[in-house]
Amino acid sequence: MKAPLDFYFDFSSPYGYLASQRIEALAAKHGRGVTWRPMLLGAAFKVSGVQPLVNVPLKGEYSKRDFLRSARFYEVPFRVPEPFPISTLHACRAFYAAPLDVSVRLAKSLYSAYFTENVNIGEAENVLKIAGYLGLKPDLNDQSIKDKTRAEVEAAIAKGVFGSPYIVVDGEPFWGMDRFEQLDRWMKAPF
Amino acid sequence: MKAPLDFYFDFSSPYGYLASQRIEALAAKHGRGVTWRPMLLGAAFKVSGVQPLVNVPLKGEYSKRDFLRSARFYEVPFRVPEPFPISTLHACRAFYAAPLDVSVRLAKSLYSAYFTENVNIGEAENVLKIAGYLGLKPDLNDQSIKDKTRAEVEAAIAKGVFGSPYIVVDGEPFWGMDRFEQLDRWMKAPF
Repeated sequence: MKAPLDFYFDFSSPYGYLASQRIEALAAKHGRGVTWRPMLLGAAFKVSGVQPLVNVPLKGEYSKRDFLRSARFYEVPFRVPEPFPISTLHACRAFYAAPLDVSVRLAKSLYSAYFTENVNIGEAENVLKIAGYLGLKPDLNDQSIKDKTRAEVEAAIAKGVFGSPYIVVDGEPFWGMDRFEQLDRWMKAPF
Repeated sequence: MKAPLDFYFDFSSPYGYLASQRIEALAAKHGRGVTWRPMLLGAAFKVSGVQPLVNVPLKGEYSKRDFLRSARFYEVPFRVPEPFPISTLHACRAFYAAPLDVSVRLAKSLYSAYFTENVNIGEAENVLKIAGYLGLKPDLNDQSIKDKTRAEVEAAIAKGVFGSPYIVVDGEPFWGMDRFEQLDRWMKAPF
């Protein structure tokens, strides 16, 4: 059995969202599963000194256009949410609080709420509502959940994750949905 | 006759170099030419506040691996030159000093010297040598050449160019060789 892909992403990342719609099919094509690993880009940015895309002069304007065009290109429903970007600490905690078999459904629901329905998943209240639809009642202030989330985010950064999506297969890292083509070929045979 | 693509790039950009190997075939496929427009990423970075890729913690390590893997993926000869990155002011001036019909050949020679033969094209002496092979003897300190180069770089930044490669077709911008797929589809029909 081949090892699953590690799929790192931030719930506030448009490219992470687009990738979330394709990653499972791509992995399955190569007989692999996917381990979903939400992280906090803000924490990675503190290490790398990088600014959120939309805050960068010149690049910010381009990136908004590219989000929309890429969504059309991949035929994924998408709108630029407002506010954007947001802190996704609560969303991340809810994910790591959930049982493994429901957590991926929760991740998809959170992404969909933010990027198609403009629900601000930066707010704990909205995260709890979405979790509730799946029968979950996470305590977002529970210390063990806080600790688990922090540990997952730190582990991601320790592995070199600096962006979203960031996929690791058998130790090989791929940053960006625009590396799916290379990822696809790599899973067929490393080059 | 369809308008040519505007192909912006920096002579020190690995992804610009990779793109330079494919851009003409891609444009020709859609009945278009290519206008080569070298610029200075350093000048754009002053506006955007962005750091050169390899200087960014986490991202820097990844990017070196990605340069090499992308070159193998696209089957383009490539080595990471030393020093890297470099200022490409002299290379840029030599390009804009050259007659149009030779300038593209010069650009290809400069890229090839830097990214396959490890010739430091940051040094005027090496730029002049490469230009000499094409029968060119540019005066890199000529005021009109300096002015033309500065005007071209400023025009690029004014158009929003913040990275390399950066391609504009009929007003639509595409940043990165990893947007060639979208660029290809766009030239077929805007989406």
